[in-house]
Amino acid sequence: MIFNVLTLFPEFIDGIKEHSIIKRAIEKGIVTINSINYRDYSSNKHKKVDDYPYGGGAGMLIGPQPIDTCIRENDLDKDSFIIYMSPKGKTLSQKLVNELKLKDNLTIICGHYEGLDQRIIDKHVDMEVSIGDYVLTGGEIPAMVLIDSVARLIPDVLSKEESHQEESHSNHLLEHPHYTRPSVYEEMKVPEVLLSGNHKKIDQWRFEQSVIETYNKRPELIDSYMKDKKIDEKSKKTVIDILKTIANS
Amino acid sequence: MIFNVLTLFPEFIDGIKEHSIIKRAIEKGIVTINSINYRDYSSNKHKKVDDYPYGGGAGMLIGPQPIDTCIRENDLDKDSFIIYMSPKGKTLSQKLVNELKLKDNLTIICGHYEGLDQRIIDKHVDMEVSIGDYVLTGGEIPAMVLIDSVARLIPDVLSKEESHQEESHSNHLLEHPHYTRPSVYEEMKVPEVLLSGNHKKIDQWRFEQSVIETYNKRPELIDSYMKDKKIDEKSKKTVIDILKTIANS
Repeated sequence: MIFNVLTLFPEFIDGIKEHSIIKRAIEKGIVTINSINYRDYSSNKHKKVDDYPYGGGAGMLIGPQPIDTCIRENDLDKDSFIIYMSPKGKTLSQKLVNELKLKDNLTIICGHYEGLDQRIIDKHVDMEVSIGDYVLTGGEIPAMVLIDSVARLIPDVLSKEESHQEESHSNHLLEHPHYTRPSVYEEMKVPEVLLSGNHKKIDQWRFEQSVIETYNKRPELIDSYMKDKKIDEKSKKTVIDILKTIANS
Repeated sequence: MIFNVLTLFPEFIDGIKEHSIIKRAIEKGIVTINSINYRDYSSNKHKKVDDYPYGGGAGMLIGPQPIDTCIRENDLDKDSFIIYMSPKGKTLSQKLVNELKLKDNLTIICGHYEGLDQRIIDKHVDMEVSIGDYVLTGGEIPAMVLIDSVARLIPDVLSKEESHQEESHSNHLLEHPHYTRPSVYEEMKVPEVLLSGNHKKIDQWRFEQSVIETYNKRPELIDSYMKDKKIDEKSKKTVIDILKTIANS
Protein backbone atom coordinates (compact mmCIF):
# COMPACT_ATOMS: atom_id res chain seq x y z
CA MET A 1 0.00 0.00 0.00
CA ILE A 2 1.24 3.45 -0.90
CA PHE A 3 0.75 6.52 1.28
CA ASN A 4 1.68 9.87 -0.30
CA VAL A 5 1.79 12.67 2.25
CA LEU A 6 1.68 16.24 0.92
CA THR A 7 3.17 18.42 3.63
CA LEU A 8 5.37 21.41 4.42
CA PHE A 9 7.25 19.24 6.96
CA PRO A 10 8.35 16.06 5.16
CA GLU A 11 11.14 15.34 7.66
CA PHE A 12 8.56 15.23 10.46
CA ILE A 13 6.44 12.70 8.54
CA ASP A 14 9.61 10.72 7.80
CA GLY A 15 9.90 10.04 11.55
CA ILE A 16 7.09 7.49 11.23
CA LYS A 17 9.17 5.53 8.71
CA GLU A 18 11.63 4.73 11.50
CA HIS A 19 8.88 3.84 13.95
CA SER A 20 8.47 0.26 15.05
CA ILE A 21 5.79 -1.58 13.08
CA ILE A 22 5.69 0.85 10.16
CA LYS A 23 9.47 0.57 9.79
CA ARG A 24 9.21 -3.20 9.54
CA ALA A 25 6.35 -2.97 7.01
CA ILE A 26 8.45 -0.66 4.84
CA GLU A 27 11.42 -3.02 5.06
CA LYS A 28 9.20 -5.94 4.03
CA GLY A 29 8.00 -3.89 1.04
CA ILE A 30 4.34 -3.98 2.14
CA VAL A 31 4.05 -0.25 2.81
CA THR A 32 5.56 2.76 1.01
CA ILE A 33 5.40 6.26 2.45
CA ASN A 34 6.26 9.14 0.12
CA SER A 35 6.46 12.45 1.90
CA ILE A 36 6.28 15.24 -0.62
CA ASN A 37 6.92 18.89 0.19
CA TYR A 38 4.38 20.93 -1.77
CA ARG A 39 6.48 24.03 -1.24
CA ASP A 40 8.77 22.58 -3.94
CA TYR A 41 5.90 23.00 -6.44
CA SER A 42 5.26 26.68 -5.73
CA SER A 43 5.62 28.86 -8.83
CA ASN A 44 6.37 31.84 -6.59
CA LYS A 45 9.99 32.90 -6.85
CA HIS A 46 10.36 32.80 -3.06
CA LYS A 47 8.55 29.42 -2.91
CA LYS A 48 5.80 31.07 -0.90
CA VAL A 49 2.72 28.88 -0.39
CA ASP A 50 0.51 30.98 1.88
CA ASP A 51 -1.39 34.22 1.56
CA TYR A 52 -3.97 36.36 3.37
CA PRO A 53 -7.63 35.27 3.29
CA TYR A 54 -10.06 37.12 1.05
CA GLY A 55 -12.60 38.98 3.11
CA GLY A 56 -10.18 39.60 5.97
CA GLY A 57 -9.61 37.79 9.23
CA ALA A 58 -6.66 36.39 11.12
CA GLY A 59 -4.41 33.63 9.89
CA MET A 60 -2.83 32.64 6.60
CA LEU A 61 -4.13 30.17 4.03
CA ILE A 62 -2.40 27.72 1.71
CA GLY A 63 -3.09 28.99 -1.82
CA PRO A 64 -4.38 26.73 -4.61
CA GLN A 65 -1.37 26.57 -6.95
CA PRO A 66 1.35 24.58 -5.12
CA ILE A 67 -0.87 21.66 -4.13
CA ASP A 68 -2.67 21.62 -7.48
CA THR A 69 0.64 21.44 -9.36
CA CYS A 70 1.99 18.85 -6.92
CA ILE A 71 -1.04 16.58 -7.38
CA ARG A 72 -0.92 16.86 -11.17
CA GLU A 73 2.83 16.39 -11.59
CA ASN A 74 2.70 13.25 -9.42
CA ASP A 75 -0.42 11.92 -11.21
CA LEU A 76 -2.16 11.61 -7.87
CA ASP A 77 -5.54 12.70 -9.24
CA LYS A 78 -5.63 9.57 -11.42
CA ASP A 79 -4.25 6.87 -9.19
CA SER A 80 -4.86 7.83 -5.62
CA PHE A 81 -7.71 8.37 -3.17
CA ILE A 82 -7.11 11.88 -1.87
CA ILE A 83 -7.79 12.73 1.76
CA TYR A 84 -7.52 16.13 3.42
CA MET A 85 -6.94 16.03 7.18
CA SER A 86 -9.35 18.69 8.39
CA PRO A 87 -11.31 19.54 11.53
CA LYS A 88 -14.37 19.64 9.25
CA GLY A 89 -13.88 16.08 8.06
CA LYS A 90 -15.67 12.85 8.78
CA THR A 91 -14.56 11.69 12.24
CA LEU A 92 -12.09 8.81 12.04
CA SER A 93 -13.47 5.56 13.48
CA GLN A 94 -12.42 1.93 13.26
CA LYS A 95 -15.18 1.48 10.65
CA LEU A 96 -13.68 4.20 8.46
CA VAL A 97 -10.18 2.74 8.97
CA ASN A 98 -11.55 -0.58 7.69
CA GLU A 99 -12.89 1.13 4.58
CA LEU A 100 -9.64 2.98 3.89
CA LYS A 101 -7.49 -0.13 4.21
CA LEU A 102 -9.16 -1.40 1.00
CA LYS A 103 -7.58 1.39 -1.08
CA ASP A 104 -4.14 0.63 -2.39
CA ASN A 105 -3.00 4.20 -2.86
CA LEU A 106 -3.88 6.98 -0.41
CA THR A 107 -2.78 10.60 -0.66
CA ILE A 108 -3.02 12.64 2.52
CA ILE A 109 -2.87 16.43 2.32
CA CYS A 110 -1.69 18.19 5.47
CA GLY A 111 -2.90 21.73 5.88
CA HIS A 112 -1.19 24.32 8.00
CA TYR A 113 -2.06 27.79 9.25
CA GLU A 114 -5.78 28.34 8.62
CA GLY A 115 -6.01 25.49 6.11
CA LEU A 116 -6.40 25.26 2.34
CA ASP A 117 -8.08 27.42 -0.24
CA GLN A 118 -11.51 25.80 -0.71
CA ARG A 119 -10.99 25.42 -4.47
CA ILE A 120 -8.27 22.80 -3.94
CA ILE A 121 -10.63 20.83 -1.73
CA ASP A 122 -13.46 21.10 -4.27
CA LYS A 123 -11.22 20.07 -7.15
CA HIS A 124 -9.12 17.26 -5.74
CA VAL A 125 -10.21 15.96 -2.35
CA ASP A 126 -12.20 12.70 -2.21
CA MET A 127 -12.74 12.76 1.54
CA GLU A 128 -12.06 15.12 4.44
CA VAL A 129 -11.11 13.28 7.62
CA SER A 130 -10.85 14.55 11.20
CA ILE A 131 -9.17 12.50 13.93
CA GLY A 132 -11.28 14.08 16.69
CA ASP A 133 -12.96 17.20 18.04
CA TYR A 134 -9.90 19.16 19.07
CA VAL A 135 -7.73 21.75 17.36
CA LEU A 136 -4.16 20.98 16.24
CA THR A 137 -1.50 23.14 14.60
CA GLY A 138 -1.36 21.20 11.34
CA GLY A 139 -2.29 18.02 9.51
CA GLU A 140 1.00 16.14 10.01
CA ILE A 141 0.20 14.38 13.30
CA PRO A 142 -3.32 13.49 12.06
CA ALA A 143 -1.73 12.05 8.89
CA MET A 144 0.45 9.83 11.09
CA VAL A 145 -2.63 8.70 13.02
CA LEU A 146 -4.31 7.73 9.74
CA ILE A 147 -1.25 5.91 8.39
CA ASP A 148 -0.68 3.99 11.63
CA SER A 149 -4.33 2.95 11.99
CA VAL A 150 -4.64 1.78 8.38
CA ALA A 151 -1.17 0.23 7.96
CA ARG A 152 -1.54 -2.09 10.95
CA LEU A 153 -4.52 -3.76 9.25
CA ILE A 154 -2.67 -4.57 6.03
CA PRO A 155 -1.95 -8.32 5.90
CA ASP A 156 1.47 -9.30 7.31
CA VAL A 157 2.20 -5.88 8.82
CA LEU A 158 1.49 -7.12 12.33
CA SER A 159 2.96 -10.39 13.50
CA LYS A 160 0.55 -13.03 14.81
CA GLU A 161 1.53 -12.10 18.37
CA GLU A 162 0.65 -8.48 17.85
CA SER A 163 -2.67 -8.89 16.10
CA HIS A 164 -5.77 -10.33 17.62
CA GLN A 165 -9.47 -9.86 17.63
CA GLU A 166 -10.14 -8.65 21.14
CA GLU A 167 -8.97 -5.08 20.86
CA SER A 168 -10.98 -2.15 22.16
CA HIS A 169 -13.23 -0.60 19.53
CA SER A 170 -13.25 -3.70 17.38
CA ASN A 171 -16.19 -5.30 19.20
CA HIS A 172 -17.60 -2.15 20.91
CA LEU A 173 -16.63 -3.19 24.46
CA LEU A 174 -13.47 -1.88 26.11
CA GLU A 175 -10.82 -4.43 26.94
CA HIS A 176 -10.53 -6.16 30.30
CA PRO A 177 -7.48 -5.25 32.44
CA HIS A 178 -4.22 -7.07 31.67
CA TYR A 179 -1.58 -8.42 34.03
CA THR A 180 1.84 -9.91 33.56
CA ARG A 181 4.71 -11.15 35.78
CA PRO A 182 5.54 -10.87 38.61
CA SER A 183 2.35 -12.13 40.28
CA VAL A 184 3.08 -9.83 43.22
CA TYR A 185 4.76 -6.48 42.57
CA GLU A 186 5.27 -4.11 45.51
CA GLU A 187 2.43 -5.82 47.39
CA MET A 188 0.07 -5.46 44.42
CA LYS A 189 -1.32 -8.83 43.38
CA VAL A 190 -2.59 -10.18 40.10
CA PRO A 191 -6.25 -11.30 40.46
CA GLU A 192 -6.36 -14.94 41.63
CA VAL A 193 -8.51 -16.18 38.77
CA LEU A 194 -5.81 -15.36 36.19
CA LEU A 195 -3.40 -17.68 37.96
CA SER A 196 -5.95 -20.51 38.28
CA GLY A 197 -5.38 -22.15 34.92
CA ASN A 198 -9.17 -22.52 34.60
CA HIS A 199 -9.75 -21.07 31.16
CA LYS A 200 -13.50 -21.05 31.34
CA LYS A 201 -13.40 -18.98 34.53
CA ILE A 202 -10.71 -16.72 33.07
CA ASP A 203 -12.85 -16.03 30.00
CA GLN A 204 -15.87 -15.31 32.19
CA TRP A 205 -13.87 -12.96 34.41
CA ARG A 206 -12.43 -11.13 31.41
CA PHE A 207 -15.80 -10.66 29.76
CA GLU A 208 -17.29 -9.43 33.03
CA GLN A 209 -14.40 -6.96 33.54
CA SER A 210 -14.78 -5.81 29.97
CA VAL A 211 -18.47 -5.04 30.51
CA ILE A 212 -17.75 -3.29 33.83
CA GLU A 213 -14.94 -1.16 32.33
CA THR A 214 -17.19 -0.17 29.44
CA TYR A 215 -20.14 0.58 31.69
CA ASN A 216 -17.99 2.79 33.92
CA LYS A 217 -15.99 4.59 31.25
CA ARG A 218 -17.97 4.61 28.00
CA PRO A 219 -21.58 3.55 28.68
CA GLU A 220 -22.69 4.56 25.17
CA LEU A 221 -20.60 1.68 23.79
CA ILE A 222 -22.86 -0.79 25.63
CA ASP A 223 -25.73 0.58 23.53
CA SER A 224 -23.78 0.04 20.29
CA TYR A 225 -23.01 -3.50 21.41
CA MET A 226 -26.66 -4.24 22.11
CA LYS A 227 -27.73 -2.83 18.75
CA ASP A 228 -25.14 -4.77 16.73
CA LYS A 229 -26.93 -7.52 14.81
CA LYS A 230 -23.69 -9.45 14.32
CA ILE A 231 -23.47 -10.14 18.05
CA ASP A 232 -25.34 -13.22 19.26
CA GLU A 233 -28.26 -13.05 21.69
CA LYS A 234 -26.53 -15.21 24.28
CA SER A 235 -23.65 -12.72 24.69
CA LYS A 236 -26.14 -9.85 24.94
CA LYS A 237 -28.04 -11.71 27.66
CA THR A 238 -24.76 -12.22 29.56
CA VAL A 239 -24.07 -8.47 29.36
CA ILE A 240 -27.52 -7.74 30.79
CA ASP A 241 -26.94 -10.21 33.63
CA ILE A 242 -23.58 -8.60 34.47
CA LEU A 243 -25.16 -5.13 34.48
CA LYS A 244 -27.96 -6.37 36.76
CA THR A 245 -25.36 -7.76 39.17
CA ILE A 246 -23.55 -4.39 39.23
CA ALA A 247 -26.83 -2.57 39.84
CA ASN A 248 -27.68 -4.85 42.77
CA SER A 249 -24.27 -4.66 44.42
CA MET B 1 5.01 23.89 30.62
CA ILE B 2 6.79 20.57 30.91
CA PHE B 3 5.79 17.43 29.03
CA ASN B 4 7.52 14.20 30.08
CA VAL B 5 6.90 11.39 27.63
CA LEU B 6 7.60 7.84 28.85
CA THR B 7 8.13 5.75 25.73
CA LEU B 8 10.10 2.94 24.12
CA PHE B 9 10.68 5.22 21.10
CA PRO B 10 12.10 8.53 22.39
CA GLU B 11 13.65 9.44 19.04
CA PHE B 12 10.20 9.28 17.42
CA ILE B 13 8.77 11.64 20.05
CA ASP B 14 11.79 13.90 19.56
CA GLY B 15 10.57 14.56 15.99
CA ILE B 16 7.89 16.86 17.41
CA LYS B 17 10.61 19.04 18.96
CA GLU B 18 11.73 20.00 15.47
CA HIS B 19 8.18 20.62 14.27
CA SER B 20 7.09 24.14 13.47
CA ILE B 21 5.21 25.74 16.34
CA ILE B 22 6.44 23.34 19.04
CA LYS B 23 10.03 23.97 17.95
CA ARG B 24 9.57 27.71 18.34
CA ALA B 25 7.91 27.27 21.76
CA ILE B 26 10.88 25.20 22.94
CA GLU B 27 13.32 27.81 21.64
CA LYS B 28 11.40 30.53 23.49
CA GLY B 29 11.63 28.44 26.67
CA ILE B 30 7.85 28.20 27.04
CA VAL B 31 7.66 24.44 26.47
CA THR B 32 9.98 21.61 27.51
CA ILE B 33 9.59 18.08 26.17
CA ASN B 34 11.52 15.32 27.96
CA SER B 35 11.31 12.01 26.17
CA ILE B 36 12.34 9.25 28.54
CA ASN B 37 12.93 5.65 27.49
CA TYR B 38 11.52 3.45 30.23
CA ARG B 39 13.52 0.52 28.88
CA ASP B 40 16.52 2.22 30.53
CA TYR B 41 14.88 1.60 33.92
CA SER B 42 14.35 -2.13 33.45
CA SER B 43 16.03 -4.22 36.15
CA ASN B 44 16.13 -7.18 33.74
CA LYS B 45 19.67 -7.91 32.58
CA HIS B 46 18.53 -7.86 28.92
CA LYS B 47 16.52 -4.66 29.54
CA LYS B 48 13.35 -6.56 28.71
CA VAL B 49 10.15 -4.64 29.45
CA ASP B 50 7.43 -6.97 28.18
CA ASP B 51 6.09 -10.37 29.15
CA TYR B 52 3.20 -12.74 28.42
CA PRO B 53 -0.22 -11.97 29.91
CA TYR B 54 -1.44 -13.97 32.88
CA GLY B 55 -4.42 -16.08 31.92
CA GLY B 56 -3.22 -16.54 28.35
CA GLY B 57 -4.10 -14.74 25.14
CA ALA B 58 -2.20 -13.16 22.27
CA GLY B 59 0.09 -10.17 22.62
CA MET B 60 2.71 -9.00 25.05
CA LEU B 61 2.27 -6.62 27.97
CA ILE B 62 4.53 -3.98 29.50
CA GLY B 63 5.35 -5.22 33.00
CA PRO B 64 5.04 -3.03 36.11
CA GLN B 65 8.69 -2.59 37.13
CA PRO B 66 10.33 -0.41 34.42
CA ILE B 67 7.64 2.29 34.39
CA ASP B 68 7.25 2.26 38.18
CA THR B 69 11.00 2.76 38.66
CA CYS B 70 11.11 5.40 35.93
CA ILE B 71 8.30 7.40 37.56
CA ARG B 72 9.88 7.22 41.00
CA GLU B 73 13.44 8.01 39.96
CA ASN B 74 12.23 11.08 38.07
CA ASP B 75 9.92 12.18 40.93
CA LEU B 76 7.01 12.27 38.52
CA ASP B 77 4.53 10.93 41.06
CA LYS B 78 5.02 14.05 43.14
CA ASP B 79 5.17 16.84 40.61
CA SER B 80 3.34 15.77 37.53
CA PHE B 81 -0.17 14.94 36.34
CA ILE B 82 0.20 11.46 34.85
CA ILE B 83 -1.74 10.50 31.74
CA TYR B 84 -1.83 7.11 30.05
CA MET B 85 -2.75 7.18 26.36
CA SER B 86 -5.20 4.30 26.12
CA PRO B 87 -8.14 3.23 23.94
CA LYS B 88 -10.07 2.92 27.21
CA GLY B 89 -9.46 6.52 28.17
CA LYS B 90 -11.66 9.58 28.24
CA THR B 91 -12.07 10.75 24.65
CA LEU B 92 -9.97 13.84 23.94
CA SER B 93 -12.05 16.92 23.20
CA GLN B 94 -11.32 20.63 23.06
CA LYS B 95 -12.92 20.90 26.51
CA LEU B 96 -10.47 18.37 27.93
CA VAL B 97 -7.56 20.10 26.16
CA ASN B 98 -8.61 23.32 27.90
CA GLU B 99 -8.52 21.57 31.27
CA LEU B 100 -5.11 20.00 30.65
CA LYS B 101 -3.51 23.29 29.59
CA LEU B 102 -3.94 24.46 33.20
CA LYS B 103 -1.45 21.85 34.47
CA ASP B 104 2.16 22.94 34.40
CA ASN B 105 3.70 19.49 34.32
CA LEU B 106 2.19 16.61 32.35
CA THR B 107 3.61 13.10 32.09
CA ILE B 108 2.36 10.99 29.22
CA ILE B 109 2.90 7.22 29.29
CA CYS B 110 2.93 5.54 25.89
CA GLY B 111 1.95 1.89 25.89
CA HIS B 112 2.94 -0.60 23.26
CA TYR B 113 1.97 -4.15 22.38
CA GLU B 114 -1.17 -5.00 24.39
CA GLY B 115 -0.66 -2.13 26.84
CA LEU B 116 0.39 -1.87 30.47
CA ASP B 117 0.01 -4.12 33.48
CA GLN B 118 -3.10 -2.80 35.24
CA ARG B 119 -1.23 -2.32 38.53
CA ILE B 120 0.85 0.52 37.05
CA ILE B 121 -2.33 2.25 35.92
CA ASP B 122 -3.96 1.78 39.33
CA LYS B 123 -0.87 3.05 41.15
CA HIS B 124 0.27 6.01 39.09
CA VAL B 125 -2.13 7.15 36.40
CA ASP B 126 -4.29 10.21 37.09
CA MET B 127 -6.21 10.05 33.82
CA GLU B 128 -6.47 7.70 30.85
CA VAL B 129 -6.98 9.56 27.57
CA SER B 130 -8.01 8.24 24.15
CA ILE B 131 -7.67 10.38 21.01
CA GLY B 132 -10.53 8.59 19.25
CA ASP B 133 -12.32 5.31 18.58
CA TYR B 134 -9.71 3.60 16.44
CA VAL B 135 -6.84 1.23 17.15
CA LEU B 136 -3.20 2.33 16.83
CA THR B 137 0.05 0.44 17.29
CA GLY B 138 1.26 2.45 20.29
CA GLY B 139 0.82 5.57 22.36
CA GLU B 140 3.49 7.70 20.71
CA ILE B 141 1.34 9.33 18.00
CA PRO B 142 -1.51 9.93 20.50
CA ALA B 143 1.06 11.56 22.85
CA MET B 144 2.03 13.92 20.02
CA VAL B 145 -1.65 14.75 19.44
CA LEU B 146 -2.02 15.62 23.11
CA ILE B 147 1.16 17.73 23.23
CA ASP B 148 0.28 19.64 20.06
CA SER B 149 -3.31 20.35 21.13
CA VAL B 150 -2.30 21.56 24.60
CA ALA B 151 0.91 23.39 23.69
CA ARG B 152 -0.78 25.63 21.10
CA LEU B 153 -3.00 27.08 23.85
CA ILE B 154 -0.14 28.10 26.13
CA PRO B 155 0.24 31.90 26.05
CA ASP B 156 2.76 33.15 23.45
CA VAL B 157 3.15 29.77 21.72
CA LEU B 158 1.05 30.90 18.78
CA SER B 159 1.68 34.26 17.20
CA LYS B 160 -1.25 36.66 16.93
CA GLU B 161 -1.61 35.75 13.26
CA GLU B 162 -1.93 32.07 14.04
CA SER B 163 -4.32 32.25 16.95
CA HIS B 164 -7.87 33.35 16.77
CA GLN B 165 -11.27 32.56 18.11
CA GLU B 166 -13.09 31.25 15.08
CA GLU B 167 -11.61 27.78 14.85
CA SER B 168 -13.68 24.68 14.38
CA HIS B 169 -14.65 22.98 17.65
CA SER B 170 -14.10 26.09 19.70
CA ASN B 171 -17.66 27.39 19.18
CA HIS B 172 -19.33 24.12 18.05
CA LEU B 173 -19.88 25.18 14.42
CA LEU B 174 -17.47 24.13 11.68
CA GLU B 175 -15.57 26.88 9.95
CA HIS B 176 -16.75 28.57 6.76
CA PRO B 177 -14.69 27.91 3.59
CA HIS B 178 -11.56 30.01 3.10
CA TYR B 179 -10.14 31.54 -0.08
CA THR B 180 -6.94 33.35 -0.92
CA ARG B 181 -5.27 34.77 -4.02
CA PRO B 182 -5.53 34.52 -6.96
CA SER B 183 -9.22 35.48 -7.28
CA VAL B 184 -9.46 33.22 -10.33
CA TYR B 185 -7.39 30.03 -10.43
CA GLU B 186 -7.83 27.65 -13.37
CA GLU B 187 -11.31 29.10 -14.01
CA MET B 188 -12.33 28.58 -10.37
CA LYS B 189 -13.50 31.84 -8.82
CA VAL B 190 -13.53 33.12 -5.28
CA PRO B 191 -17.13 33.90 -4.17
CA GLU B 192 -18.00 37.51 -5.16
CA VAL B 193 -18.99 38.61 -1.68
CA LEU B 194 -15.46 38.07 -0.33
CA LEU B 195 -14.11 40.58 -2.86
CA SER B 196 -16.84 43.15 -2.10
CA GLY B 197 -15.15 44.89 0.82
CA ASN B 198 -18.55 44.93 2.57
CA HIS B 199 -17.65 43.48 5.93
CA LYS B 200 -21.17 43.15 7.18
CA LYS B 201 -22.10 41.04 4.16
CA ILE B 202 -18.89 39.04 4.45
CA ASP B 203 -19.61 38.23 8.08
CA GLN B 204 -23.17 37.21 7.19
CA TRP B 205 -21.97 34.98 4.34
CA ARG B 206 -19.37 33.34 6.54
CA PHE B 207 -21.79 32.61 9.34
CA GLU B 208 -24.29 31.21 6.85
CA GLN B 209 -21.63 28.99 5.25
CA SER B 210 -20.51 27.87 8.66
CA VAL B 211 -24.04 26.77 9.55
CA ILE B 212 -24.48 25.04 6.16
CA GLU B 213 -21.16 23.17 6.45
CA THR B 214 -22.04 22.05 9.96
CA TYR B 215 -25.56 21.00 8.99
CA ASN B 216 -24.22 18.94 6.07
CA LYS B 217 -21.22 17.37 7.76
CA ARG B 218 -21.79 17.23 11.52
CA PRO B 219 -25.49 17.96 12.26
CA GLU B 220 -25.06 16.91 15.92
CA LEU B 221 -22.85 19.97 16.46
CA ILE B 222 -25.86 22.21 15.65
CA ASP B 223 -27.59 20.63 18.66
CA SER B 224 -24.61 21.37 20.92
CA TYR B 225 -24.62 24.97 19.65
CA MET B 226 -28.32 25.36 20.39
CA LYS B 227 -27.90 23.93 23.89
CA ASP B 228 -24.91 26.11 24.82
CA LYS B 229 -26.07 28.72 27.32
CA LYS B 230 -23.06 30.93 26.57
CA ILE B 231 -24.34 31.59 23.06
CA ASP B 232 -26.78 34.46 22.69
CA GLU B 233 -30.38 33.99 21.56
CA LYS B 234 -29.95 36.26 18.53
CA SER B 235 -27.26 34.01 17.04
CA LYS B 236 -29.40 30.96 17.70
CA LYS B 237 -32.33 32.60 15.94
CA THR B 238 -30.09 33.37 12.94
CA VAL B 239 -29.07 29.69 12.79
CA ILE B 240 -32.73 28.63 12.76
CA ASP B 241 -33.47 31.11 9.97
CA ILE B 242 -30.57 29.77 7.89
CA LEU B 243 -31.72 26.18 8.41
CA LYS B 244 -35.26 27.13 7.37
CA THR B 245 -33.92 28.72 4.19
CA ILE B 246 -31.96 25.53 3.40
CA ALA B 247 -35.05 23.39 4.05
CA ASN B 248 -37.15 25.52 1.69
CA SER B 249 -34.62 25.59 -1.14
